[in-house]
Amino acid sequence: MKALIAIDSFKNSMTSIQANQLVAKALAKHGISAKQVAIADGGEGTVAAFLANQPGGERVTVSTVDIYQRPIQANYGYFAAKKLAVIEVAAASGIQFISDGQTPAAANTYGTGLLIKAAIEHGARQIIIGLGGSGTVDGGAGILRALGYRFYDDQNQALAMVGADLGHVARVDTTAVLPNLAEVTFINASDVTNPLTGDEGAAAIFGPQKGLAQADVPAYDQAMQHYMTVTTGQVSAHVGDGAAGGIGFALRYFLNAQVKSGFKLIAELSQLAASVEQVDFAISGEGQVDDQSFMGKVPIQISELAQAAHKNCYLLVGNQKGDNQAFAAHGVTAVLPIVDHVSTLAEAMQQGPANLAKMADRLARILVANH
Amino acid sequence: MKALIAIDSFKNSMTSIQANQLVAKALAKHGISAKQVAIADGGEGTVAAFLANQPGGERVTVSTVDIYQRPIQANYGYFAAKKLAVIEVAAASGIQFISDGQTPAAANTYGTGLLIKAAIEHGARQIIIGLGGSGTVDGGAGILRALGYRFYDDQNQALAMVGADLGHVARVDTTAVLPNLAEVTFINASDVTNPLTGDEGAAAIFGPQKGLAQADVPAYDQAMQHYMTVTTGQVSAHVGDGAAGGIGFALRYFLNAQVKSGFKLIAELSQLAASVEQVDFAISGEGQVDDQSFMGKVPIQISELAQAAHKNCYLLVGNQKGDNQAFAAHGVTAVLPIVDHVSTLAEAMQQGPANLAKMADRLARILVANH
Repeated sequence: MKALIAIDSFKNSMTSIQANQLVAKALAKHGISAKQVAIADGGEGTVAAFLANQPGGERVTVSTVDIYQRPIQANYGYFAAKKLAVIEVAAASGIQFISDGQTPAAANTYGTGLLIKAAIEHGARQIIIGLGGSGTVDGGAGILRALGYRFYDDQNQALAMVGADLGHVARVDTTAVLPNLAEVTFINASDVTNPLTGDEGAAAIFGPQKGLAQADVPAYDQAMQHYMTVTTGQVSAHVGDGAAGGIGFALRYFLNAQVKSGFKLIAELSQLAASVEQVDFAISGEGQVDDQSFMGKVPIQISELAQAAHKNCYLLVGNQKGDNQAFAAHGVTAVLPIVDHVSTLAEAMQQGPANLAKMADRLARILVANH
Repeated sequence: MKALIAIDSFKNSMTSIQANQLVAKALAKHGISAKQVAIADGGEGTVAAFLANQPGGERVTVSTVDIYQRPIQANYGYFAAKKLAVIEVAAASGIQFISDGQTPAAANTYGTGLLIKAAIEHGARQIIIGLGGSGTVDGGAGILRALGYRFYDDQNQALAMVGADLGHVARVDTTAVLPNLAEVTFINASDVTNPLTGDEGAAAIFGPQKGLAQADVPAYDQAMQHYMTVTTGQVSAHVGDGAAGGIGFALRYFLNAQVKSGFKLIAELSQLAASVEQVDFAISGEGQVDDQSFMGKVPIQISELAQAAHKNCYLLVGNQKGDNQAFAAHGVTAVLPIVDHVSTLAEAMQQGPANLAKMADRLARILVANH
């Protein structure tokens, strides 16, 4: 028998790659081979997932800066044959860089811009940018500056475009923009639907997680509106522009990025629909499945692909909420919760890898015994 | 497909009968029929299990007394065609009758003896006595007295044979013993291996659970030794004589009872080994499986029968402790823990029936999808 394994991460317990490998190893012990497809959501692990799924990729390390312009080394993934780079915003502009007591006013995404620039200079003509886990709220201005956009205030002073500069932009100069930028196709890997400004905007929703005081949200939002109006000549509430502290906006408006979910990108590049045709059954899963799963979460995307191909599909999960029949209607043969004894959440997460391997082993035994 | 379902009770959550029914109902929804075999351990539920397993049985209600000679109504099971009665010691002499502050000195099994007598008068010539859950430590003397044995002290005074009388027995008179007692075959359904007296004896091990103060254990044990020596002329440490406060002794020595485990009785009467040949797979389980399960617990007895018949066997359990492979070596295709999300023990027990039904439903879906 052959399986397709495409399990989403178990948050705070296992990455998608780890989960896939554990299950593949458990199945192999019973003579079941597997094609593994790592799942990415645009956040940390996106580069690793693409590299795991596609042969011919490499990890490129470059010197760049963090959100406060401190020198760091960061990686991106590169597929030479496709001139494709995969970059995580989290690599140089992630939330892990935020210093205690600092606010987004002092931070920007310049370091991610340098990664993009390095990838283009390396030869990339397609760039997938994963927007998860950013530590900035700069409307993507730092990225733009690294790519050659120049921002000036009404005194004609060049701005560094940290968060505090957003409200002072008077004009944008594009004369120094990287010449081959127009040849590059950008894809924004994100599921976020927030607009750039307003009550659901980047400052209001993501600012407080990144150190912005609630009291400062209105002023920050106003500065963001000013930045948007000055740079684009319009006020818009474009869906997804607020992703990653406004990087969504910069990628869409200045770099013509398409927005795709991380799953959709993986599914296309890994030819998931074709892959499921070639196996006997599919396995997916994640930390929890519930009503939300039917809103396009990975396990149900996989089960629906399996259903279309008339293959069985098993979901290995930490928690199952909801009836078996509700999942069956979406092509799930059985949801299999991996907890094997009464335990606390902390225990369950700590034992997650062992429990996952054990449930995969059970499933393999059942399938082999009924083959 | 057809299944054999023989699930042990989930302690404090579901009886064997309830568990079997829930699983049978879940399988039926997917077109899988089932033969159900209720499991009994000699304790409460033993009569119900025999009646559930065998056609032609009836529940007979008789007037008897509890452990303090208070009038009560109690049931036994009767199979007219086999002249077989099934009696639970718990019915008239159960731990539920113990009054606050009372000790075994004031209690006896006379009420159970009346049940036995009634069954014999009803026509029973085989009597299975389930020894679980007794509230007495009378060496079975109460039962004997109800069947016509007379106990006297050294003043030739007749004794009621409550616990306090054990040390005063001087002789036993058998002239009034029920005449047809010799025609009756007794089977003691028990897994208890304690001897009647000593450190592992009835007073030491079961006395304290039944209200005996620790300080009074040595004297009680000595009285029990006296009772044994006077009535039998010997001092023995026969395995199992200590069961149910010493009923094991009375049944063996005076009534020539054979000892069989509740499971073995059920297995014989239900022809379990033959039944498993006629199904596609077996399902067993209980609240927890662990290392102890390999010491002859019901789920492993079932899996070994299935293994001998080259059938798959699934265990639906509350908790699984131990590796899948350890269970596989005993014929278990897969142990399937029924917990489907992180929960406390109390929640898991409260949700036990729903979780069991849900896991049976998952299993049915997998089996049907792979049939």
